[in-house]
Amino acid sequence: MRAVDLIRKKRDSGEHPREEIDFLIAGYTRGDIPDYQMAAWLMAVWLRGLSTSEIAALTEAMLYSGEVLAFPEIPGKKVDKHSTGGIGDKTSLILAPIVAAGGLTVPMISGRGLGHTGGTLDKLESIPGFNVNLSLEQFRHVLKQCGMGLIGQTREIAPADKKIYALRDATSTVENIGLICGSIMSKKLAEGIDALVLDVKVGSGAFMKREEDAANLAEVMIETGRRMGKKVVALITDMDQPLGRAAGHANEVAECIDVLNGAGPADLRELSLELSAWMFYLGERTPSVDDGRRLAQHMIATGQAKEKFKQAIRLQGGDERVVDEPHRLPQARAQVDVLSPGSGFIAATNSQNFGIALAILGGGREKKEDTIDPAVGLQFHKRIGDRVEKGESLATIRYNADARLAEAKALIAGNYYIGHAPQEKGPLIRRILGA
Amino acid sequence: MRAVDLIRKKRDSGEHPREEIDFLIAGYTRGDIPDYQMAAWLMAVWLRGLSTSEIAALTEAMLYSGEVLAFPEIPGKKVDKHSTGGIGDKTSLILAPIVAAGGLTVPMISGRGLGHTGGTLDKLESIPGFNVNLSLEQFRHVLKQCGMGLIGQTREIAPADKKIYALRDATSTVENIGLICGSIMSKKLAEGIDALVLDVKVGSGAFMKREEDAANLAEVMIETGRRMGKKVVALITDMDQPLGRAAGHANEVAECIDVLNGAGPADLRELSLELSAWMFYLGERTPSVDDGRRLAQHMIATGQAKEKFKQAIRLQGGDERVVDEPHRLPQARAQVDVLSPGSGFIAATNSQNFGIALAILGGGREKKEDTIDPAVGLQFHKRIGDRVEKGESLATIRYNADARLAEAKALIAGNYYIGHAPQEKGPLIRRILGA
Repeated sequence: MRAVDLIRKKRDSGEHPREEIDFLIAGYTRGDIPDYQMAAWLMAVWLRGLSTSEIAALTEAMLYSGEVLAFPEIPGKKVDKHSTGGIGDKTSLILAPIVAAGGLTVPMISGRGLGHTGGTLDKLESIPGFNVNLSLEQFRHVLKQCGMGLIGQTREIAPADKKIYALRDATSTVENIGLICGSIMSKKLAEGIDALVLDVKVGSGAFMKREEDAANLAEVMIETGRRMGKKVVALITDMDQPLGRAAGHANEVAECIDVLNGAGPADLRELSLELSAWMFYLGERTPSVDDGRRLAQHMIATGQAKEKFKQAIRLQGGDERVVDEPHRLPQARAQVDVLSPGSGFIAATNSQNFGIALAILGGGREKKEDTIDPAVGLQFHKRIGDRVEKGESLATIRYNADARLAEAKALIAGNYYIGHAPQEKGPLIRRILGA
Repeated sequence: MRAVDLIRKKRDSGEHPREEIDFLIAGYTRGDIPDYQMAAWLMAVWLRGLSTSEIAALTEAMLYSGEVLAFPEIPGKKVDKHSTGGIGDKTSLILAPIVAAGGLTVPMISGRGLGHTGGTLDKLESIPGFNVNLSLEQFRHVLKQCGMGLIGQTREIAPADKKIYALRDATSTVENIGLICGSIMSKKLAEGIDALVLDVKVGSGAFMKREEDAANLAEVMIETGRRMGKKVVALITDMDQPLGRAAGHANEVAECIDVLNGAGPADLRELSLELSAWMFYLGERTPSVDDGRRLAQHMIATGQAKEKFKQAIRLQGGDERVVDEPHRLPQARAQVDVLSPGSGFIAATNSQNFGIALAILGGGREKKEDTIDPAVGLQFHKRIGDRVEKGESLATIRYNADARLAEAKALIAGNYYIGHAPQEKGPLIRRILGA
């Protein structure tokens, strides 16, 4: 078998049997196949696509390029959630404590933010002392003690994905359903979980702008997970505007604490409960999703989820006092309001640009090498359908450096679209697939 | 400007302005753009195509990546021919002496063979002592003395092409009209010529199997050459069967000498005269193509072309005695006939496989690193339309090693298609474009 022939085959719309995918992924991971051949193959894949069985083979080849975790010493089911990302999407920090407090184990391997989207690891690191770089042994220890653990992709987990992802980023071959599925699912299946809830975002702040594309990606991930014997359900959820009211790292952690305290914005609370409910149900902790929702609510109402979050922070080296005293989170030096340029009703937002505004202010990464200022944040006051008067505050910017403040303000103000009539808000949860 | 954005643009069917092509080619040649980004771009180009103006920009960027020759000290026009290659295609060794003897200068930079096609450089090296690796200074000296010179691509000539070609070969991005045009024309335009005659082969032994594809490539090359102020004409010629009767390196040189002696097979003679005629005409040596044909015939009839070939061999370090004593060329140890498995008329050949049979016997390269046995050769006895009896010889194999002889024999016998009725032979010259 030669890589050059497999590149030609995909270029000419051929379908690879499992052995060919294995040859490519194993060879590339070992370094026998050079970057330039993988890059050509990835572009051929981007333009020609992968079949469902090719995607399954790719996912498995990437999964087995590294260590696949298992926790036989921890009783009960292990479950996780993965989101395709968006603005203010912070549910992991809420549902992991809820689900762990409810008795399941959540071994969560997360990523970092790039461009307009934030990353769970970066958010956690805004908690003083929090260490996301645990060894697998430490991770296992934390999981055993408190039922949840939050780490980044280690060298041992899906090394093929790590190498291929860096190459995709440099060769404009990121946005392809098969490659995305392989990347996500190889990491998630390496966690040793029994069930996975997918939160596939759709809208102006999401990677997928059209609901059909989101559903398509969801179906492929469900199919791939099931072929590997996992329970998988996907919620297609709204990202036409930020989730909750807060964006930015410390800012989002504070909002998660609000929700764990039984408060916080309704949309964030609703989605966190819904995702937790599905995790309880798929993890066989409750006989129905409704029961799962009630259990999740109970974990918040009794303060058990909040205590679980404190325990997790402590076990990963963080300062758990932030949960009761959120002012201990990094605070920005100054704040300024973004004023509405007109009166009317918020008709839509191009919320991807809110994420870019945040990155411009240092609260995100424009390039991979950028460091993040965790104190920088945005607080959104107006949502789709809300009445707004000219000069009223649309959002508050919390910032430290004002070099690009005007640019960020303009980007936020310019991406709220104001109409004359009140707008019907779409549902937060658009569809549930695989149920 | 960033390579990753230009890759995305081509992936999404965008058209590059000249500055973007320049950025990619210059950056890649310098080493600022890595192989993997160029590989992804090449695959996107392969699948999305290049516009005429992109091809022109690509060709120029590759041309100016290196030295562009000029021979102001040599009076008169400089002309060349390029063929897209096929089985037994050896006209360069005939027309260069004819045209140089006729008073024009032919600064010919040629290539090596790979797979089923032979290369002019390899054929020349079957002449004992012949050196194709002249420095540009030596090349200039030879050209000045005898009006023709035959060398390989030096480091100075179109280094971008050399680097890109190697990458295309490893990434299955060879067969694309824009990339082929850029590769051919950047080298040919670097020769400092005034006019170029293209011999675009079509048929079972050619890269282009369909006449429309060949015509399309020809049009693109004509257009590109003309944008650079060159006279360019293309002949679309038959490659449904080998050109002449001989394939293999020493074997083909001997057949060229036959033609220069006024003998040799009719098709090879006709095509060599026709190409020479166009070179004379485009080089303004004769007022018409017909006059060019007469001049070419005259150069053969008077022995001037043959004497020119001897002079060229001598000046490039070769043993010119081979011209009068062809037995001084490498000779194979043994020979065997390939017998016809049936009776009837030759209806067609899949002549690409004759080239592969030759390579199998060591008379060509299966891989780039292979060395060639110049004595190995094929002599074809039957042509399309010929009557053949069962057991009659279709071709003679001249070989040194018999390890894969049976395989080669079967490949030759199996690729003559024998029908019941006499077959009309198609014309040798299918079309002339750009005239």
